[in-house]
Amino acid sequence: MRDLFSHPNGGHAAQAAARDARVEVDKLRNFIQAMDHKSKFTDLIQIGIGGSELGPKALYIALKAYSVENRRVHFISNIDPDEAAAVLREVDPKKTLVVVVSKSGSTLETLTNEEILRSHFQKCGCNPKEHFIAVTGKGSPMDNPERYLSSFYIWDYVGGRYSATSMVGGVMLAFAIGFDGFYNILKGAHEMDLIALNPDFSQNLPMLAAMIGIWNRNFLMHPMVAILPYSSALARFSAHLQQCDMESNGKHIDKWAHPVDFDTGPIIWGEPGTNGQHSFYQLLHQGTTVVPIEFIGFRENQYGQDQIVQETNSQEKLNANLFAQAIAMARGERSDNPNKVCQGNRPSSILLGRRLDPFAMGQLLAYYEHKIAFQGFTWNINSFDQEGVQLGKRLANRILDISASKRTAKKHERFPEAEAMMRELESL
Amino acid sequence: MRDLFSHPNGGHAAQAAARDARVEVDKLRNFIQAMDHKSKFTDLIQIGIGGSELGPKALYIALKAYSVENRRVHFISNIDPDEAAAVLREVDPKKTLVVVVSKSGSTLETLTNEEILRSHFQKCGCNPKEHFIAVTGKGSPMDNPERYLSSFYIWDYVGGRYSATSMVGGVMLAFAIGFDGFYNILKGAHEMDLIALNPDFSQNLPMLAAMIGIWNRNFLMHPMVAILPYSSALARFSAHLQQCDMESNGKHIDKWAHPVDFDTGPIIWGEPGTNGQHSFYQLLHQGTTVVPIEFIGFRENQYGQDQIVQETNSQEKLNANLFAQAIAMARGERSDNPNKVCQGNRPSSILLGRRLDPFAMGQLLAYYEHKIAFQGFTWNINSFDQEGVQLGKRLANRILDISASKRTAKKHERFPEAEAMMRELESL
Repeated sequence: MRDLFSHPNGGHAAQAAARDARVEVDKLRNFIQAMDHKSKFTDLIQIGIGGSELGPKALYIALKAYSVENRRVHFISNIDPDEAAAVLREVDPKKTLVVVVSKSGSTLETLTNEEILRSHFQKCGCNPKEHFIAVTGKGSPMDNPERYLSSFYIWDYVGGRYSATSMVGGVMLAFAIGFDGFYNILKGAHEMDLIALNPDFSQNLPMLAAMIGIWNRNFLMHPMVAILPYSSALARFSAHLQQCDMESNGKHIDKWAHPVDFDTGPIIWGEPGTNGQHSFYQLLHQGTTVVPIEFIGFRENQYGQDQIVQETNSQEKLNANLFAQAIAMARGERSDNPNKVCQGNRPSSILLGRRLDPFAMGQLLAYYEHKIAFQGFTWNINSFDQEGVQLGKRLANRILDISASKRTAKKHERFPEAEAMMRELESL
Repeated sequence: MRDLFSHPNGGHAAQAAARDARVEVDKLRNFIQAMDHKSKFTDLIQIGIGGSELGPKALYIALKAYSVENRRVHFISNIDPDEAAAVLREVDPKKTLVVVVSKSGSTLETLTNEEILRSHFQKCGCNPKEHFIAVTGKGSPMDNPERYLSSFYIWDYVGGRYSATSMVGGVMLAFAIGFDGFYNILKGAHEMDLIALNPDFSQNLPMLAAMIGIWNRNFLMHPMVAILPYSSALARFSAHLQQCDMESNGKHIDKWAHPVDFDTGPIIWGEPGTNGQHSFYQLLHQGTTVVPIEFIGFRENQYGQDQIVQETNSQEKLNANLFAQAIAMARGERSDNPNKVCQGNRPSSILLGRRLDPFAMGQLLAYYEHKIAFQGFTWNINSFDQEGVQLGKRLANRILDISASKRTAKKHERFPEAEAMMRELESL
C-alpha cells in the first residue's frame, strides 16, 4: 500500500499490490491537482465507519495545523440521524465534496448516510454526481461511474483498521493538507515499515514495543494499556489505536482454531496529557488496578506559536509534565500521611519525536500497526479477521425486520427478548 | 448547587449553599438577558482543564442541537500551545467572549492559556476587560473586577468533576443553548437528586446502578466498565465520566486511612455506538478479558430529521443495534466453527430515555454523579479528594525550574532522571 519508495519486497502478490497502489496514488495526484486549480470546494464530508473513519479522522486532526487555507473536513459515521443533521447544518452543499468509503459497498451505516446526503444535495439543487466520490472495492455495488464524480479503489486484503494510508484516508487527506502532505505520510510510514523488517530486535522499534506489551500482558497480567500523547493534535489517535489493536487482537482462538490458554489483546484507551492529569491520573497513581502507559511527546509544537509565562514556554511545560508523570509512576512516593502514598512501580514507556508533521505521523501510525501485528504473531492469533462482530449484525437485522413489519405488514420471526426491549422503549 | 426547586435539605450549610447558588443563577440570567439583547458575541472560548472542561464540553456537545442560532463554543484546556493556536485561527476576537474557569485562580494550564489569549486580543485591538469573564472562587487571585467583564463564583466544597451544573458549565451553556436551556439541565439534575434520596433501593435508580457496579467489580472481579451511548451527541460523555468516576474512586486508602484490601473504582472508557461496533466490539465479544457494559439509548432523535432507507429509519437502526448488542453479549453463540464462537455471559445494562434534551441531560449527569458517590460510600473511601495527582505536579515544577534556568541563570536542584530525559528530547 505504501511500498512505493523502494523495490517491492516479497513475491508476485506484493509486487502486484504495490503496482495497484501506485495507480491509485497517481490518479489521486491528478484529481487533486485539477481540483486545486479550480478550487471550488471548501468542505469535504467523509462518510464511513470503523476504519473508514477512525484512522482518517485521527490523521486529519493530527495534521490540521498543515491544512490548505479555507478547507475543512467533516465526518459522518454513526447511523444516528443526528450526526448527519449536525454536519449538514454547517456546510454549503455547492462547495462541498462527499467521499463515501466502504470496501464492500454494502455497509449499512454508510449507505444510509449516503442516501440522506444525496437527498439533501438534490433538495439544495446540487447534482450528487458532481460532488460524490466513491472509495470502494473494484466491482463493488458502489463502483458505478454513473453515480460518482470519481472512484478510487481499495482491496480486500487490507482490513479497514489498517487502511488509513490507502485511498480510505488518502482522498480526504490530500484535499485537507495537499497531495504532498499525504505523500509525506506515506514516506514516513514506509520508513517505519523498513525498520519493522530489521531482524535485529534491538534496532526494531515496533518489535521492542510489542515485546514490552507482551511482558505487561502475559507476565505481569495487566489487562489494559493507556496511550497518552502529550499533544492535543493526537486527540483521536488513541481512539484509532483502540480499533486497530482491539479488533486485531481481541481473539480467543489461535490460528489452528484452538482456544488460547493465555490472554491476548489488551483493552486500549487514552486521552491527551496534560488533560488526563486533571482527569483519570488519580487512579493511575493511587488506584487498586495497575495500568501500563505508553506516553508520546514532541520536542517542537506544530504552529510555531508559543509564549513564555513564568519563565518557561508552553511546550516546555507540556514536556515537563510528561517527564514528571513517567518518573512519578515509576518511583511513587512514601509519606507519613497514607493518603499521599503512591505505590510506584507502575510501568510506562515514552516515545519521543521532533515534531508532529506528516512524515512523523506516518512513522507513528506504522509503528503501532507493526507493534499490533507483531503481538498477534506472538500469540499465534489471526489479527486480520473479526468474526466476533457478525453475531450482533445478524441479531440487529432480525430486530430491523420487526421495525419494518410495522410499516410493511411483512411477517417477522419472533424474538421475545428484543420485542420486550422495544416495548420498553416505546413506553417512554 | 441545584437545590433550587424544592425546600433545601439538610442543615445550615446546605441551605446557605442553595442561597449562594441562587444568587449566581440569578446573576447569570441577568447577564445573559442583557447579552442576548445586544447580541454582539457569536463565539465563546472556555479556558479550563479537568472538571472545567470535560463536563461542560460533554454537555455542550450533547445539547448542540438546541443551540441559539449563530453561536459557537470552543474549548482550550491543554498547556499544549497548539491547542490555543488552533482555536484562535477560527474566531474573530471582536465577537468572542472568553470564560476563564479556575476555582483556585492558580491552575498552571489555565493561567498560561489566559495570558496567551489576552496578548492575542490586545494585538487584535480588543480590550480583554470587555471580553473576559472569570468563573472562580470568591477572593481568589482571579476575582478581580478590574480585569474581567464579570465574575461568577464557585465554592471549594464542590470538586471540579462535580461542577458541570455550577457556573463552571452554566455561563457557557446559557450562552450556547440559552438561559432556559441551562435552567432545564438544573431541573433535570434536581429531579434525579430527589430520586437518589429515596431510601427504597428498588426505586433509587443510581443506587441500583451502583450496586450492579459493585457486583461486577468486587464479586466478578472485572477491572473496568465501558460506557457506550447509542447517541453521537454523547460523544464526550464517557470522557467526562472517566474523570468523574476514576478521580473520585481511584483510591487505595479508606476514610480511616487504612489501605483497602479489595478493589475500588474501575477504569472507565467508552465511545458511541454504533461506531464502537466497527471498532473494539470484536474484543468485547471474543476477547479474553470481560468488560461490563453500560449502554445508553433514546427513543427519539434530537434534530427531528430522519429518513427511511430499506424500510426502517436511522433511529430504528440505531436502537436495533443497541438491543442486538446487549442480547449478543448475554447469549453468545455456539458454532461448529471455533472462530465464530462467542462465549456470552458478558454483563451489560441498558439505560433508556425518551429524548436527549436539556432536562434529560441533567438527569443523566446526576444519575452518574450519584452512582459514583454511592460506590465511594460503599467502599468507605473519600470520593472527594485527589491526593494522587500532587506528586506529578511537584516533579513537573522541579523540571520547569531546569527549563527556566536556561533563560534566567537561576540555580536549580539536580534531578538526574529528568535531566537525562530532557537531553534525549533535545537530541532530536
